[in-house]
Amino acid sequence: MTPLPETPLLDKVKLPADLRGLDDRDLPQLAAELRKEMIDAVSKTGGHLGAGLGVVELTIAIHKVFETPDDRLIFDVGHQCYPHKILTGRRDRIRTLRQEDGLSGFTKRAESEYDPFGAAHSSTSISAGLGMAVASDLAGTDRKVIAVIGDGAMSAGMAYEALNNAGALDARLIVILNDNDMSIAPPTGAMSAYLARLASGRTYMGFREIGKKLTAYLGKNVDRAITRAVGHARGYVTGGTMFEELGFYHIGPIDGHSFEHLLPVLRNVRDNALGPVLIHVVTQKGKGYAPAEAAADKYHGVNRFDVITGAQAKAKPNAPSYTSVFGETLVQEARLDDKIVGITAAMPSGTGLDKLQEVFPKRTFDVGIAEQHAVTFAAGLATEGYKPFCALYSTFLQRGYDQVVHDVAIQGLPVRFPIDRAGFVGADGPTHAGSFDTGFLASLPGFVVMAAADEAELKHMVRTAVAYDDGPISFRYPRGEGVGVQLPERGEILEIGKGRVIRQGSKVALLSFGTRLADCMLAAEDLEAAGLSTTVADARFAKPLDHDLIRQLARHHAVLVTVEEGAVGGFGSQVLHYLATEGLLDSGLKVRPLVLPDIWMDQAKPETMYARAGLDHTGILKTVFAALGQSGVGVNAAG
Amino acid sequence: MTPLPETPLLDKVKLPADLRGLDDRDLPQLAAELRKEMIDAVSKTGGHLGAGLGVVELTIAIHKVFETPDDRLIFDVGHQCYPHKILTGRRDRIRTLRQEDGLSGFTKRAESEYDPFGAAHSSTSISAGLGMAVASDLAGTDRKVIAVIGDGAMSAGMAYEALNNAGALDARLIVILNDNDMSIAPPTGAMSAYLARLASGRTYMGFREIGKKLTAYLGKNVDRAITRAVGHARGYVTGGTMFEELGFYHIGPIDGHSFEHLLPVLRNVRDNALGPVLIHVVTQKGKGYAPAEAAADKYHGVNRFDVITGAQAKAKPNAPSYTSVFGETLVQEARLDDKIVGITAAMPSGTGLDKLQEVFPKRTFDVGIAEQHAVTFAAGLATEGYKPFCALYSTFLQRGYDQVVHDVAIQGLPVRFPIDRAGFVGADGPTHAGSFDTGFLASLPGFVVMAAADEAELKHMVRTAVAYDDGPISFRYPRGEGVGVQLPERGEILEIGKGRVIRQGSKVALLSFGTRLADCMLAAEDLEAAGLSTTVADARFAKPLDHDLIRQLARHHAVLVTVEEGAVGGFGSQVLHYLATEGLLDSGLKVRPLVLPDIWMDQAKPETMYARAGLDHTGILKTVFAALGQSGVGVNAAG
Repeated sequence: MTPLPETPLLDKVKLPADLRGLDDRDLPQLAAELRKEMIDAVSKTGGHLGAGLGVVELTIAIHKVFETPDDRLIFDVGHQCYPHKILTGRRDRIRTLRQEDGLSGFTKRAESEYDPFGAAHSSTSISAGLGMAVASDLAGTDRKVIAVIGDGAMSAGMAYEALNNAGALDARLIVILNDNDMSIAPPTGAMSAYLARLASGRTYMGFREIGKKLTAYLGKNVDRAITRAVGHARGYVTGGTMFEELGFYHIGPIDGHSFEHLLPVLRNVRDNALGPVLIHVVTQKGKGYAPAEAAADKYHGVNRFDVITGAQAKAKPNAPSYTSVFGETLVQEARLDDKIVGITAAMPSGTGLDKLQEVFPKRTFDVGIAEQHAVTFAAGLATEGYKPFCALYSTFLQRGYDQVVHDVAIQGLPVRFPIDRAGFVGADGPTHAGSFDTGFLASLPGFVVMAAADEAELKHMVRTAVAYDDGPISFRYPRGEGVGVQLPERGEILEIGKGRVIRQGSKVALLSFGTRLADCMLAAEDLEAAGLSTTVADARFAKPLDHDLIRQLARHHAVLVTVEEGAVGGFGSQVLHYLATEGLLDSGLKVRPLVLPDIWMDQAKPETMYARAGLDHTGILKTVFAALGQSGVGVNAAG
Repeated sequence: MTPLPETPLLDKVKLPADLRGLDDRDLPQLAAELRKEMIDAVSKTGGHLGAGLGVVELTIAIHKVFETPDDRLIFDVGHQCYPHKILTGRRDRIRTLRQEDGLSGFTKRAESEYDPFGAAHSSTSISAGLGMAVASDLAGTDRKVIAVIGDGAMSAGMAYEALNNAGALDARLIVILNDNDMSIAPPTGAMSAYLARLASGRTYMGFREIGKKLTAYLGKNVDRAITRAVGHARGYVTGGTMFEELGFYHIGPIDGHSFEHLLPVLRNVRDNALGPVLIHVVTQKGKGYAPAEAAADKYHGVNRFDVITGAQAKAKPNAPSYTSVFGETLVQEARLDDKIVGITAAMPSGTGLDKLQEVFPKRTFDVGIAEQHAVTFAAGLATEGYKPFCALYSTFLQRGYDQVVHDVAIQGLPVRFPIDRAGFVGADGPTHAGSFDTGFLASLPGFVVMAAADEAELKHMVRTAVAYDDGPISFRYPRGEGVGVQLPERGEILEIGKGRVIRQGSKVALLSFGTRLADCMLAAEDLEAAGLSTTVADARFAKPLDHDLIRQLARHHAVLVTVEEGAVGGFGSQVLHYLATEGLLDSGLKVRPLVLPDIWMDQAKPETMYARAGLDHTGILKTVFAALGQSGVGVNAAG
C-alpha cells in the first residue's frame, strides 16, 4: 500500500470553522492537499472520483464564505460530496466510503449535521433548498441556503419545477450551477446546448464585470421591487437568460477553479442577495488528476485504482453481467425487427443501451435525466407501431410512475420496461435499491410483470417482450453478474403467465420470482437431505400469475414459500391474494412469503444483505423448518 | 328542457373532412354554432365548460389546416376537447359526456381515431407528440404532429423535459401553447409570469410581421443547418425567448380567436416547418359565454346549469364533503400550531387548502402543477421543523412517488400527506381514480398509512398527523360527501397502529380500511339476521398494522374479510402477509381480501361502481356466504 499523502494544511482543518480561519491565499494549497487526499482515498475504496475532483475549489470556497452547518449546503445527487465529507469531520472515515458500516457514497442526514439533505437521485436540491429558504423566511432568520447542482441534473423536470416556484416565491435561495458539461455521459438536451452556448459565447466574466453586475443586481440599498422590475424589463428587452426569465439573478459563467472568481462572488451574494440567485460556475470533471481529466466518463465511478498509472482494478467476472446480456440481446433482436427502439434517461452505458446506440444510433434515444418524459415519449412511439424498450433502473422508474399508470397502462400501450438494478445494489445503498417495482407494477390492470431467474431467462424475456404486443410488459433483473448458465443462441418466446417447475417434490414447495432461484435450489438440496421432498418452481410472472402452477403447489404440498427480492406488496402478495380469494388457504396450507425486510438497509456486500434479509439459502431453510415446527438442526445450512 | 340550438352549418359538418370543404369565411359562423352546441350540451351534462369555449376557433382552425386523423392532434389534459369531440363524429353522443356508458370527459384512444393519445393528467402532450413525431421521421412519413397545451400545464417539469428533448432532437413537432392565463386556478410560478410578460409586452403580431418572421425562420429552401445556426445566434445575441433557447422556433403571441391570425400561421407552419415550432396563442377561457367569461374559475368544471342565467344546479349535500372537513380542520389546527404549512400543486380549492390560504396566506404554497417539486419542497420544510401538509389527490401523488420514497421516506422526514380522491371518483373515470396509494406507500419502511372511515375519523387523522413527528404519515379519504356523522369539536390524537372494533361478534369478522366501513356495518346486520355473529372493525392503519387486533380476529372467527377501496397490494396484502408470516393462516381461517377489481373501470355513478367492484354491502355478503359454502338465499341483500 502506498503511504498516505502529505497534507500539512489539511491536517489542521478538522471542521469548516478551521477553514474559515485560513487566509484566502492559503486556499490553493488546501485545494491541492484535499485533492491528493481524495484521490488516495478513492484509489482504495473505489467510488465517484471525477465529480468530487471538479468541485474541490468550489467546496472550499463555500465553506469559507458561508457559516455551515447553520447555513445550509445541499449537494445535488451527492456524487461530488467527498471533498465536503473530508472537510466536515469525516476525514478519519473517508477510506470506509461505500463499505459496510462505512460512510455513505452520498450526503446523508444521519451522518452529519453538515448534510442537511440526503441525496443520490438527481435534481432534488433546488426543491429541498427552497423548502429550507422558505422555512428561514417564515422563522425570520437570516440563514443562507445554497444548492449545488450539475448541468446534467438541469435536464430533469423537477429542477425546472423548483426554479419556476423559487422565481415566483422570490425566496432567498442560492443555486450554484456546476457546469462541467458532463454528468455521467455527456449530457443531451437543448438545455445542455444552451449552457454550452452561454459558457462558450462569452469569456469568463472579468472582475470588473462581475463587480458591475453584482452592484447593478444586488445593491443592498436599492429598493427590491424596483430592482426586480428593472431586472425583468432588462430580461424582456434584451432577452436575458432563461434563468433571468424565471426570476433568478444570474451571475456567470465564472471559473470554478479560481478562488479569485469564487470568493468575491460568493461573498457578494451572501451579503447582498435579496431574492433567488443562480451562479453559473464552469468546472472540469476530474480536475487535477490527469487520467480523470482525460477520460471523464471512465472516471465517473471507479473501482480501486493505482494512483500513479490510473489503472483500475478489475474483478474477473465469472459470467457476463445482466446489463450486458440485456444490451446484447436487444441488439440481436433489433437486427431482426426494425420497429425496436431504445430509450434511456441519461444512462446509456449503465443500462446497456450503449450497445444499441452503437449499432442503431437513430433508433436509440437518450432523453436526459427525464424519466417522466422517457415513459410518455415511449408511449407516443408505441401508438405508432414501434416497440419501445424504455430501459430504467428500478429506483428511477419511480420517477415515471404516474406516466406508467396514466400514459401506458390505462391506454394498454405495448411499452417494454427492462428494469435493471432490481433488488439490492451493494455499495450504492438504500437510495439505489430496487425494492418496489413488482408491487407498483403488478397492481396495474393489464400489465405483464416478469423477473428473470438467470441470464438465459433474461434473453428469453427480451425476446418475449419483443413478441408481446398486447399491452405493457416489464422484466426485472439485478445488478451484477449472471449465474454463469449457458446462453442460448437466441431467446425463446415464453408463454405469458406460465411458470416452470425446476424440480419436483411432494412436501415443500419453493416458488421463486427472479434470481433467488439459485438459493432456492441450494435450499432444496438441504431439505431433501433432511428428508423433506422439495419442489422448486420459477414463477417467471408476477402478473398474470400462473394459476395452474400455484394451485398445484398449494394442493400437493404442506408448505409453500414464495421468494423474491422485493418489498411486501409484490409477487408474494399477488400469490397470497390469489390463494385467499380462491379458498386455497382454507385447508391449512402453511404459506410463507419471503420479501425484503421492512427497513432501509445500508450499503454492504450483496451476500451480506441477502443473509440479513433472510433471502439466502439459509434464510429459506430456516423459514421452512420454522413452518414445520422443526429446528433444522443438523442440516448443513452453511451451503 | 330548452330546445336544441339552431346550427345549420354545424349540422353539415360530420367530420373534419366536411369542415375542410368549407370556405374560410364560413368559419366564424361555424365557431358561433359550435359554441352554442357546446354550451347547450354541458348545461345538460355538467363538465368542463370554460376550457372548451376558449379553443373553439383554435380547434376549428387546426382541423381545417391539418389532415386529421392522419396528422396527429393531441390535447393536453383534455378539459378543452369537447369542441373537438363534436367535430370528430361524436356530436350525436355529446350529451352523454361523463355519464355511464357515455363519452369520456377527456380524449380517449378507444373512443375515436381522432384521439391519438388519451389524456386527463396534465402536461403529457409534448412527450407523446414527440414520440409520434420521431416515429414519423423513422418511418419516413410526412405526418404532422400537433400538441395543444395550456399555460398552466407548462409549470410541470414533464413539459420542460419534453421541450428540452424535442429541441435537441430537432423533431418536426408543433406545440401550440394555449395561453389563457388560467388553468383551473390562476396559475402560479415564474413561467406563468414570463408568459404574461411576453403576451402583454408586445401587441399581437401583425400580418406582415408574422409573414416576415415565418419567412425568416421557416423558408423551405434555406439550408436547415444554417437556419438553425442563425436562429441560435440570434437567440444568443438578443436573448430570444426561452423557447428559442430550447431550440424551438417561437411564433406569437397571436390572437387565438381570430381566424385571420390562426389560419395563415398554421398553414405556413404546416408547409414549411423543418424543426420544432412553438406557436403562442392567446385565448380567453369561457369565451363567448358571458357568465363563464366573467368568472373563469367558477366555470372551469360545472354542474348542469341554466343557459340563460348561468345558474348552476346544486345538489343538496347531506353532509359536508371530506375535502371541506379536511380544509377546515387544517385551519383549526393551524391556528394552534404555527409550524403547520400547506402545499398544493395547483389545486387550492380541489384540495380544500384554499381555506388555509385565506387565513394563513404566507403558510400556504401553491407550487403549480409540480408534484415532484411539491413533495421535496415539503421535505425541505420538514428538515427545518415545519409540519408540511402536502395535499394531493391520490392519482396525482403518483407523480411525486420517487420523491416520496427518496426524499421523504428514506430520510424519515415528517411530511404529512392528506390524500384526497382516494378510490372511485365517478364522472372523471379511470384516469382520476385513486387506486394505488395504499400499496405504494405501505410498502415503504417507516411510513404511517391511514384511511378515514368517515368525516369524524378524518378530523382525528388530521390532528394525529399534526401530532406525529417521527416520520412520514398519510391519510386517505374519498371524493364527495361524508356519511353525516356528528363532527367532534376537535379531532383526537389516535394511537399509531391501533384499529377499533365497532361491533363484536364471533363467527365472521369484517375488517375495513377506509369508508367502506358503512357497507360493512350494513352487511353485518344482514349476517346477524342470517344467524352469523359478526364482528366489524375499522383498521384505521394499513401501516403499522394493528397486530393484536388482527390476531384476535383471526383466532376467534371462522371467516375474515378485509375490505378496502384500493388495488391488490395494499391493505389486504399487508394483512395477508402478516397472517401468513405469523402462521395464523395455518389453522384454516377462511380469509378473503376484497379489493378493487383488476380492470380500468370507466366512469359511472359511485354506487354503480361499488356494486360492480363487489365492494358494496351486497358484495361483502356474497363473499362471506361463498366462503362459508352457503348461498345466502333469503337474506335481504338489497340493503
